Amino acid sequence: MKPRIPWDQLKRRLAADEWSRSPEICAAHAGDKWYAAHLPEAVALPASAASVSNILAFAHQHRIPVTARGAGYGYVGGCVPMRGGIALSLARMNRIREISPGDFVAVVEPGVITAKFQRAVERRGLYYPPDPASRENCSLGGNIATNAGGPRCLKYGVTRDYVLGLEVALADGKLVRLGGRTHKNKTGFDLHRLFVGSEGMLGVVTEATLKLLPRPPFRACLGAGFTSIRQATRAIRAIFAAGFLPSALEMADEFTLRAAEKRTGTRLLAGCNAHLIVELDGQEASVRREIRALAKVIRSADPVFVQQGLGDAGCEQFWGLRREFSYSLRDTGLTKLNEDIVVPRGRLEDLFRLTASLQRKHRLLLACFGHAGDGNIHVNVMHNAAEADERSRAEACLDDLFRGILALGGAITGEHGIGLAKLPWWPDAVAEPGRQLHARVKQALDPLGILNPGKFLE
Amino acid sequence: MKPRIPWDQLKRRLAADEWSRSPEICAAHAGDKWYAAHLPEAVALPASAASVSNILAFAHQHRIPVTARGAGYGYVGGCVPMRGGIALSLARMNRIREISPGDFVAVVEPGVITAKFQRAVERRGLYYPPDPASRENCSLGGNIATNAGGPRCLKYGVTRDYVLGLEVALADGKLVRLGGRTHKNKTGFDLHRLFVGSEGMLGVVTEATLKLLPRPPFRACLGAGFTSIRQATRAIRAIFAAGFLPSALEMADEFTLRAAEKRTGTRLLAGCNAHLIVELDGQEASVRREIRALAKVIRSADPVFVQQGLGDAGCEQFWGLRREFSYSLRDTGLTKLNEDIVVPRGRLEDLFRLTASLQRKHRLLLACFGHAGDGNIHVNVMHNAAEADERSRAEACLDDLFRGILALGGAITGEHGIGLAKLPWWPDAVAEPGRQLHARVKQALDPLGILNPGKFLE
Repeated sequence: MKPRIPWDQLKRRLAADEWSRSPEICAAHAGDKWYAAHLPEAVALPASAASVSNILAFAHQHRIPVTARGAGYGYVGGCVPMRGGIALSLARMNRIREISPGDFVAVVEPGVITAKFQRAVERRGLYYPPDPASRENCSLGGNIATNAGGPRCLKYGVTRDYVLGLEVALADGKLVRLGGRTHKNKTGFDLHRLFVGSEGMLGVVTEATLKLLPRPPFRACLGAGFTSIRQATRAIRAIFAAGFLPSALEMADEFTLRAAEKRTGTRLLAGCNAHLIVELDGQEASVRREIRALAKVIRSADPVFVQQGLGDAGCEQFWGLRREFSYSLRDTGLTKLNEDIVVPRGRLEDLFRLTASLQRKHRLLLACFGHAGDGNIHVNVMHNAAEADERSRAEACLDDLFRGILALGGAITGEHGIGLAKLPWWPDAVAEPGRQLHARVKQALDPLGILNPGKFLE
Repeated sequence: MKPRIPWDQLKRRLAADEWSRSPEICAAHAGDKWYAAHLPEAVALPASAASVSNILAFAHQHRIPVTARGAGYGYVGGCVPMRGGIALSLARMNRIREISPGDFVAVVEPGVITAKFQRAVERRGLYYPPDPASRENCSLGGNIATNAGGPRCLKYGVTRDYVLGLEVALADGKLVRLGGRTHKNKTGFDLHRLFVGSEGMLGVVTEATLKLLPRPPFRACLGAGFTSIRQATRAIRAIFAAGFLPSALEMADEFTLRAAEKRTGTRLLAGCNAHLIVELDGQEASVRREIRALAKVIRSADPVFVQQGLGDAGCEQFWGLRREFSYSLRDTGLTKLNEDIVVPRGRLEDLFRLTASLQRKHRLLLACFGHAGDGNIHVNVMHNAAEADERSRAEACLDDLFRGILALGGAITGEHGIGLAKLPWWPDAVAEPGRQLHARVKQALDPLGILNPGKFLE
């Protein structure tokens, strides 16, 4: 028989609003944007690192599962409390403690909303590049837990590259400070970055020191339509060959474009079966000149059209269209399984050949768009989830997709993490010695296995 | 009594030229560029990952210390085999296995010399940014073990940011593949990067998959002299405020400039007590325009002079001068203790105030130059090592320096690592909970403690 948990002991260590066992609040902390959910037995809403530490110390003593969560905008069920226990929300720790234009760092609590943070640093002439699509809703702590990316990662790198230091509550509640506020640091192992992307399975981040860049003064975009994926990938190769490293290089496929046409009524995309958005940033005069040079490079790949947008407003027309892609897919009425696979940069055409063959084999529509410059394409398997047959074909299609991606030397997730959604393919993605090493590190940091159990390490 | 080691058993598992116990060869593998040395009992020179695995399996069975080494160009005694045992040189594993211009990756063995690799990728129109000063002599494996930096890290990041995948031999000889060849990857923990910068204490890298960039088509430099550090730091602030993120931003102080004048006979630096080198790279027309804009920005800080150099040859005049700085210090006949400290970017002036006060207090000359953009300044404590009194004053000065740097929120090492040189300050740099966490990770990966023992984890 499971021993009764003395919740009252924990409750006494927390403020009244740091703690709830109400069914409504438990239900609100049972999942993320993926479809799976599991009820926690209690929800902790700590307002301080000291409270996080208290919660973990209690959970450790009583071997209670603790599943940390940011804003709940993950796409793979990573914060679903599969073994019940405590759902630990960092949402209330949402203060930006410091923005230092002199040191080019910021110190933040994990619950700060990403876009709000970006606007705050930009007002000071600074720049925090990582830009996941959900940035208006997701939190920096969640970004750290998943090592979030986004379009700008092509030039600027992912969340990990901006984490200079962390305060982490370990599984037993001990607080440890790792890294620091210098832009370079070679003191000991790179332990703070071990927690970046660890999906809440190694510790709980209670504070982060983030690196900032000078804000690029100007940006400009090109949008270009092509009759085929082949031509679009030719354009991508030409862009890199000309020595450009764009701040974004996004691609969309035929299905996505047709859905977007239907939604927006645009005639622009007529005859196009692939679309690229390329963004440059930097000094204004340089960007204005380079965007013209880049248009010339793209024209060498024989596009249907090339359009240019200058400045924030000019760029927004392309990113607005990009956002429509997602809504357009929703408009089809079909359920989309959004898989953030990655292939080596040179294998983009092979990826599209693979998805085309899977469409035929499984009689499903696959809509692909995303960060082509990184080889990180969101493959959306569209299906009618109400039909059992379509559901099982979608499952079979995912299985073929992930195995095909791995055969191309790719990765099953580039941005979202393993969570629950990718769990079945974890053994295919990482061979036995690698999985054993993961288990050893997990065992060293969380010997009782209380942190986010039920995920890829059991 | 220590049991006799059955070396013959290991010898039988290796080729004749993969193994030596000759006193000359042992002596040649006893240290690096730092002054300390300790003889190994045997030297292994494996030609393959299989041999590395055999060596480690044998060493693990018999609890023999194994200290891996790249080219032996470290600056902190990191590869000194303090407990004897086997010095494991990766020098013979020096093949570039693949350069893929399509995937923008390269696959290398650890013994490849960094500059040779850079030239090979540049011939293909590609770019590998990390550029430690010793790049003509050091190896990629050594760079990975120390997470090497260099001037270009300001814009491009350090070695870690270019390591996409590793094959590692673990302490017991098991080979494990981590990461992959995609530019983004969120599969599991970021375990391969845990080995980057781990100074041979967690495993031995036998192969690395490195990220490459498109080669920037053009670069240009400015050199500028200032009457004071204060004016030079004002110029640095103005450069960032104008939204520039230079590919290098180097600074030299008065002592360094006087020594350089003496060596080179240049009159250029007359009246200058600080000097900056700023490099930009990118599209040629942009760089040509931006370098003029940057000169204007620097003139706002009232320099003694600003000089411009365009293209590789034009830039080389400044980097040639930069190299002379090191030789000039050697010309003084004094011994220099080169310490790669880092301060938060906004604390540069405080750093120079600190070194000035240490000069007075310890009656020693301190020459400072380095990567000002990162806050990563090489502080050279100059002293006559033949004089016991100067030696002890130099030691006391280092102690004050490191404590002062930590008080400024800085780090005791930005590029070289802890090794033996920084060992005394390890407990000051990392508080007890952080050191405990290091020990737990070490224990998980190397439970017998055979990998590079005698360094910062015992």
